[in-house]
Amino acid sequence: MRPTELTALDRQLKFLLELDKLKSVIRQSSLANGSRRENSAEHSWHLVMFALVLSGHAEIEVDTDHVVRLLLVHDIVEIDAGDFPVHAGGALKADKEAAEYVAAERIFGMLPGRQAATFRDLWLEFEAGKSAEARFAKALDRLQPLMLNIAVGGGTWTENNVSEKQVIERYGPVIAAGSVSLWETALKLVQSHFKSMPLS
Amino acid sequence: MRPTELTALDRQLKFLLELDKLKSVIRQSSLANGSRRENSAEHSWHLVMFALVLSGHAEIEVDTDHVVRLLLVHDIVEIDAGDFPVHAGGALKADKEAAEYVAAERIFGMLPGRQAATFRDLWLEFEAGKSAEARFAKALDRLQPLMLNIAVGGGTWTENNVSEKQVIERYGPVIAAGSVSLWETALKLVQSHFKSMPLS
Repeated sequence: MRPTELTALDRQLKFLLELDKLKSVIRQSSLANGSRRENSAEHSWHLVMFALVLSGHAEIEVDTDHVVRLLLVHDIVEIDAGDFPVHAGGALKADKEAAEYVAAERIFGMLPGRQAATFRDLWLEFEAGKSAEARFAKALDRLQPLMLNIAVGGGTWTENNVSEKQVIERYGPVIAAGSVSLWETALKLVQSHFKSMPLS
Repeated sequence: MRPTELTALDRQLKFLLELDKLKSVIRQSSLANGSRRENSAEHSWHLVMFALVLSGHAEIEVDTDHVVRLLLVHDIVEIDAGDFPVHAGGALKADKEAAEYVAAERIFGMLPGRQAATFRDLWLEFEAGKSAEARFAKALDRLQPLMLNIAVGGGTWTENNVSEKQVIERYGPVIAAGSVSLWETALKLVQSHFKSMPLS
């Protein structure tokens, strides 16, 4: 091996250092104490804890460890492509998706070949949202910001002037596709939240 | 069931909201870009990615999903007990450990019984550091801040006036116990870092 050639471990360590950048990708949701907005790295950890704790509520029995892996990698493309807020306009969506595919090639491509493919496949499975694990992972990815919004008294819903009906439309189908019982409980939290809000 | 009684799902959701506080526990290490110090939630995500990427280098073959679970929960007690820096004085250590046990009881105890025990057991296994998975998890928990310190040109080593010899003593045994090959590579990074530092 020539001295300038990177070993598999060198490539893995470079990839892991690159991942540090996800800590600087800022999402719309605030922390539950309202002190600042959440970043995508800590969001990913929080979501994975949702998976460990709540996987027994999945609509179809899921492989919890696989849900965990999907959620660990699901936001890595945001290092290049940025976060795509739930309440953003639909026109931006196609551009964003294209940017995410390019990002996946670049970032996962830093890893040795077979490992690069494994990570890319996890991300593609999450995006496709077809497997039971991906559907449950996507449900949690809606449930967590819903809970943070309620914790801070409205959050991105207040900021974007989102109505109770819109919350139900934008969160309900995705959460219910992963778990009807989680959505039933979340819906009660949403209804109780909007009931307590002064009418604008 | 009386209306005031919490269901298992209510308890799980309260626990998950409580975990949000780990995003406000600040560690000594800086992000790789030096912009701010790292918090324990994003650190946990980063470490778990180290596990997914590097588990093939473990000294003894490990169950990667189990390493992942150990790392996901390993810092949760810091919500009550705070972070314990590697370069802190040894006298504080016993107090800190006692506080962590109390924290584990309170925080994991928010979960329904069997799940509380599962999480507490994961944390205890990590702390004991005896299983192959716990040894590898602890190795990664040293390797990651080592890499961040090198990325920022010294970080907590410069701040605490830690010498090359002390770095080797404080990181080497823990990393090598999980993976000799990871320590061999990390040692080269450490030596090259101190070689490039001006002598103080």
